[in-house]
Amino acid sequence: MSNLKQILESNKNYTDDFGEKANLPMPPGRKVSVLTCMDARLDPAKFMGLDEGDAHVIRNAGGRASEDAIRSLVISYKLLGTNEFYVIHHSDCGMESFTDKDMKEKFEGIENNSHIENIDWLTINNQQESVKSDVDKIKNHPLIPKDIPVHGFIFDVKTGKLNEVRT
Amino acid sequence: MSNLKQILESNKNYTDDFGEKANLPMPPGRKVSVLTCMDARLDPAKFMGLDEGDAHVIRNAGGRASEDAIRSLVISYKLLGTNEFYVIHHSDCGMESFTDKDMKEKFEGIENNSHIENIDWLTINNQQESVKSDVDKIKNHPLIPKDIPVHGFIFDVKTGKLNEVRT
Repeated sequence: MSNLKQILESNKNYTDDFGEKANLPMPPGRKVSVLTCMDARLDPAKFMGLDEGDAHVIRNAGGRASEDAIRSLVISYKLLGTNEFYVIHHSDCGMESFTDKDMKEKFEGIENNSHIENIDWLTINNQQESVKSDVDKIKNHPLIPKDIPVHGFIFDVKTGKLNEVRT
Repeated sequence: MSNLKQILESNKNYTDDFGEKANLPMPPGRKVSVLTCMDARLDPAKFMGLDEGDAHVIRNAGGRASEDAIRSLVISYKLLGTNEFYVIHHSDCGMESFTDKDMKEKFEGIENNSHIENIDWLTINNQQESVKSDVDKIKNHPLIPKDIPVHGFIFDVKTGKLNEVRT
């Protein structure tokens, strides 16, 4: 069965049991916003115990505090009332396995490859450092209030455990 | 109980039953990459039937094809072998409820508010149009191969249903 067909079948089952979820309000009930990696092994709802309606979840390659992640966090607290942020990177992350130079080489010879000259791929050298740096970046951003706690964690893909990073 | 304590307790339960997930490889098993909104009511793993290990999940305010989302999609297919993308916006999205001008006004008077002058908040006027425009942006991006299918959907928060957007 194609992915598309399988996804639509799974979605049909989901709607059959939708129930009370139809009445959830837009603002996150637990006032939490999570920034984590797109990695397929991570399901933040499951590993943090979040139900539909509980929290904003922002994900990108690496779980990095990119300008776009900051845009989302600002909308999250300013318009939808979240007051606690979680930054979660993880062990065995793909972002540790290459450099900007590698990416440039991979695209050598393609048309318009000038597009990649200026891309910061936000690769990671060390997870402890990347979490600290992203937590700091969020805490010190001029549009983020100083009284929002920003917790840093590394998710261990071998055990499922969230290990706190002291920042 | 604080959110932090509750999240760590839920995480403890998750690790207790981690089992086979410890052996999942990094590349997504179903070769799928999903771009959707951070909205708290959306749990793409649940509404698409995705297990840990199946798919990359990229999320931001609106589920928009921002430069950062494109960065993530390029890493997803180029380094980790995905070959099918899903762009999923949703009904009753917060991104329909304000404009860039509103945001500027909300931050009037704060220090360093020059920071917000140049932010495109990627607000949405019409979900059909935003899905079409983001699917087109991805399909036509010079770093995205033309043979990757990009499916567009709107998730209905009142029913849980994925409604396809013909692009």
